[in-house]
Amino acid sequence: MKLSRLKLQRFLLNFSLIFVSISSSVYAQKKPNIIVFLVDDMGWQDTSLPFWTEKTPLNARYHTPNMERLAKDGVKFTNAYATPVCTPSRVSMITGMNAAHHKVTNWTSPQYHVSSDNADEQFAPASWNYTGLSPKAGIPNTIHATSYPQLLKDAGYFTIHVGKAHWASVGTPGASPYNLGFILNIAGHAAGHPQSYFAQDYYGNKPGKSTMQSVPDLEEYYGSDTFLTEALTLEAIKTLEAPIKNKQPFYLNLAHYAVHDPLQADPRFYQKYIDQGLDPQEAKYAALLEGMDKSLGDVMDYLKAKQVDQNTIIIFMSDNGGLSMTPPRGGVAHTQNLPLKAGKGSVNEGGIREPMIVKWPGVAKPATTASQYVIIEDFFPTVLEMAGIKHYKTVQHVDGKSMVPILKNVNYTDNQRSLYWHTPNKWTSKDGPGINYKSAIRKGDWKLIYNMRDGSKDLYDLKADIGELENKAAENPEKVEELSALLAAQLKKWDAPMPIVKSTGKPVPMPDQAGIK
Amino acid sequence: MKLSRLKLQRFLLNFSLIFVSISSSVYAQKKPNIIVFLVDDMGWQDTSLPFWTEKTPLNARYHTPNMERLAKDGVKFTNAYATPVCTPSRVSMITGMNAAHHKVTNWTSPQYHVSSDNADEQFAPASWNYTGLSPKAGIPNTIHATSYPQLLKDAGYFTIHVGKAHWASVGTPGASPYNLGFILNIAGHAAGHPQSYFAQDYYGNKPGKSTMQSVPDLEEYYGSDTFLTEALTLEAIKTLEAPIKNKQPFYLNLAHYAVHDPLQADPRFYQKYIDQGLDPQEAKYAALLEGMDKSLGDVMDYLKAKQVDQNTIIIFMSDNGGLSMTPPRGGVAHTQNLPLKAGKGSVNEGGIREPMIVKWPGVAKPATTASQYVIIEDFFPTVLEMAGIKHYKTVQHVDGKSMVPILKNVNYTDNQRSLYWHTPNKWTSKDGPGINYKSAIRKGDWKLIYNMRDGSKDLYDLKADIGELENKAAENPEKVEELSALLAAQLKKWDAPMPIVKSTGKPVPMPDQAGIK
Repeated sequence: MKLSRLKLQRFLLNFSLIFVSISSSVYAQKKPNIIVFLVDDMGWQDTSLPFWTEKTPLNARYHTPNMERLAKDGVKFTNAYATPVCTPSRVSMITGMNAAHHKVTNWTSPQYHVSSDNADEQFAPASWNYTGLSPKAGIPNTIHATSYPQLLKDAGYFTIHVGKAHWASVGTPGASPYNLGFILNIAGHAAGHPQSYFAQDYYGNKPGKSTMQSVPDLEEYYGSDTFLTEALTLEAIKTLEAPIKNKQPFYLNLAHYAVHDPLQADPRFYQKYIDQGLDPQEAKYAALLEGMDKSLGDVMDYLKAKQVDQNTIIIFMSDNGGLSMTPPRGGVAHTQNLPLKAGKGSVNEGGIREPMIVKWPGVAKPATTASQYVIIEDFFPTVLEMAGIKHYKTVQHVDGKSMVPILKNVNYTDNQRSLYWHTPNKWTSKDGPGINYKSAIRKGDWKLIYNMRDGSKDLYDLKADIGELENKAAENPEKVEELSALLAAQLKKWDAPMPIVKSTGKPVPMPDQAGIK
Repeated sequence: MKLSRLKLQRFLLNFSLIFVSISSSVYAQKKPNIIVFLVDDMGWQDTSLPFWTEKTPLNARYHTPNMERLAKDGVKFTNAYATPVCTPSRVSMITGMNAAHHKVTNWTSPQYHVSSDNADEQFAPASWNYTGLSPKAGIPNTIHATSYPQLLKDAGYFTIHVGKAHWASVGTPGASPYNLGFILNIAGHAAGHPQSYFAQDYYGNKPGKSTMQSVPDLEEYYGSDTFLTEALTLEAIKTLEAPIKNKQPFYLNLAHYAVHDPLQADPRFYQKYIDQGLDPQEAKYAALLEGMDKSLGDVMDYLKAKQVDQNTIIIFMSDNGGLSMTPPRGGVAHTQNLPLKAGKGSVNEGGIREPMIVKWPGVAKPATTASQYVIIEDFFPTVLEMAGIKHYKTVQHVDGKSMVPILKNVNYTDNQRSLYWHTPNKWTSKDGPGINYKSAIRKGDWKLIYNMRDGSKDLYDLKADIGELENKAAENPEKVEELSALLAAQLKKWDAPMPIVKSTGKPVPMPDQAGIK
């Protein structure tokens, strides 16, 4: 092999350029963009996309064409779970920890050192982490953990949060998404809902009228007719400009305030639902949903226009079940998530089962359905595996399990896994179905609910009875014992907070303990 | 020259890696990081660093060791100018346009469609752009222009704004730094001052107590003892983490709310100035200054710790002269910037001459002084030239002149250049020295001030009389004529807004026009 010096130099230069070019292209393929599109308080049936075996009246009521479009491009999860309320889900999501483990078992007050728990006659409060998530150790009443956005950022991702944050109270680092691994944050802070969706109200920032729920960062829209959902969408799209241009992989946490109360009429869609015969409250709710769905479509359109849709994963999720209390919801209380029982705040399916869709171009088969049950803490290992990030260090032990095997094979089945829910809290002043002082476990098709008030246990066969109408505990004592033991062992392992029985001064017994009254 | 195939492959691989490594290093050198450290309402003498030919009593009063440190590393500009008030300077800075040209000649109200001008008996308002800067065409009462942060962003810079923005009113795109070329914005919005510097006040965000001046984005500090200046510094430093790690060149606009009114006592420094014998208001002012100076030092320390200080340009500047009205300032009105006359709001030197320092490692000679006069709109071409950005497109014609030749040779002299100031506005309800309805021009050492109230003109020789105490107009009619003609020609060229004389319904005459009463 002979080469002149000049030819060799030229060859080397060409080779180098090709090498560089190949490297960056490989890099781009290795690092997909990832969007988690997180809706607030959206129920499993709050969509025209059926997540059950049949299309329900609620599926007929709502119009979410872009969720349908996303499902055509990806995998629909029919057994995806979150926790019953928002902060626990949001903390579980970015830490990979179960709520019983991170102990942020109820929503965090935006105010520092204020527990959101209601007072109770029977129980004194459990010692839960009512201040939320902290990226630093030593903040009282917080869970100190490493978030996956931080690990993505460390790996070179451009990490963006837009919308509702609600990870921790003011006066602590976790109040700011900037401390949780996000390079960029718009409109996310300590509060869990917007004071107002209306730009005419300055989203709650009118002088003298502010609350902790005034939404920050959106002054350009003040006084216009830009509904909050639309403003967040426009802002989110704007944030993608730089990373797309710079070919930097991005992670976008687009966490809408919708469809959380206050139910306000998005004027773009409201009348349509009135005309459809809905009462005003339900028409407002349906309009909030459709506004959220438009946002999803706008983001998908933008990705396509920028030609990055084939390298962008979209994960659609909600943080808990649809609100089923009346008011603010219309209709009969706790029927808003039918066929599921109850709604937000409940460990019944209506409070925890979520409409989840994952589009992963080139990996997950389009228009497929996965029935394996998964839970919100699974997002942590899933997102990191999607991003090709291995050997990372976390402060916490991660409980979640990667969903990648399911995404690669939607028939993946694991009926031996157990999922856990734990609410040692009084979320509402009055107990409701599955609401206040409950723990639950699902394994296979069986689900056991432990009622801390009286030690009673409900057992449901979700395959036959998704509505949790028939308690099978009496006829399946071994299953009750098995699931009680599993639940108790896990709660003990995690040192889960338990309410204190006022009459004895002792914690509520574990579900496997005898002598429960 | 003979090489086995394997050896050649190895050689090629090594060569490629070296090539890549060299390329990125060259790239890094080509694109320096740039920080504009912009102080609000800081006067030319509000520092222990002398900007005059002699050290003044004010230099002895204030303690700004980090400005002294920066000056040792860079070039001190003794004749740097801004406009008399904040928004005009901020718009000039990022558009390169003179205020008479962009027509945002007074500060913008945060509220939409509200002019900040005071009512006047003699004059009806000039038609100035009281809504501020807009990146989009067609927004009423705004100047549509391209910002240099946008051009930096387009060229791959990670562009960050932290602190006071105040470029435009709410309800318009310019209210949000995200629309002005910044990838990231913390705490910048439509308002021009903070409701409170105190975290105990939630920086103005206490429920029910908000105003348009409530500072956004800092919830993690609420209730702590973190003074606003410190919070902004911590946030700014945090924003640099990602670009430094990713080796992406950054532009940081660190625009402190300090030392703008409300004068609040930064507890870290206040007592020191009381002990020094200052009255409480002046002690508060001095403490605000030292807090700002600490911020500069903290940023410099961070850059050094991250080993990027030698590739980071720092430009220190203020947006207008020190406030000289009593109250809120202590002492005798309009003496706060001595030897300069008047203060903020005035076209006298006290209102427009600024403490400017530029550190440009490897280019600008450390510990040097430049006496060439420069003005805030010069930032536009200067920053772009520093970043090596050429052939850019702008909506506007840029008036500013690059300061790079001065930075490369501090003895650079251009006495033929004219600088212009134009205030066809009533900033304060009562006129003051150089305040309300004034235009001015500086050429060489001569400065002419045109008083729109009565058509009178003052002429000062700044070299002999920096305090503008001796009006030399009567004895230099040709100089008055020359400068009046230049000023008039420029105002006409820019179609500068002029107040309307109520008695005639006509605009105030140009400075070169005869028959001025």
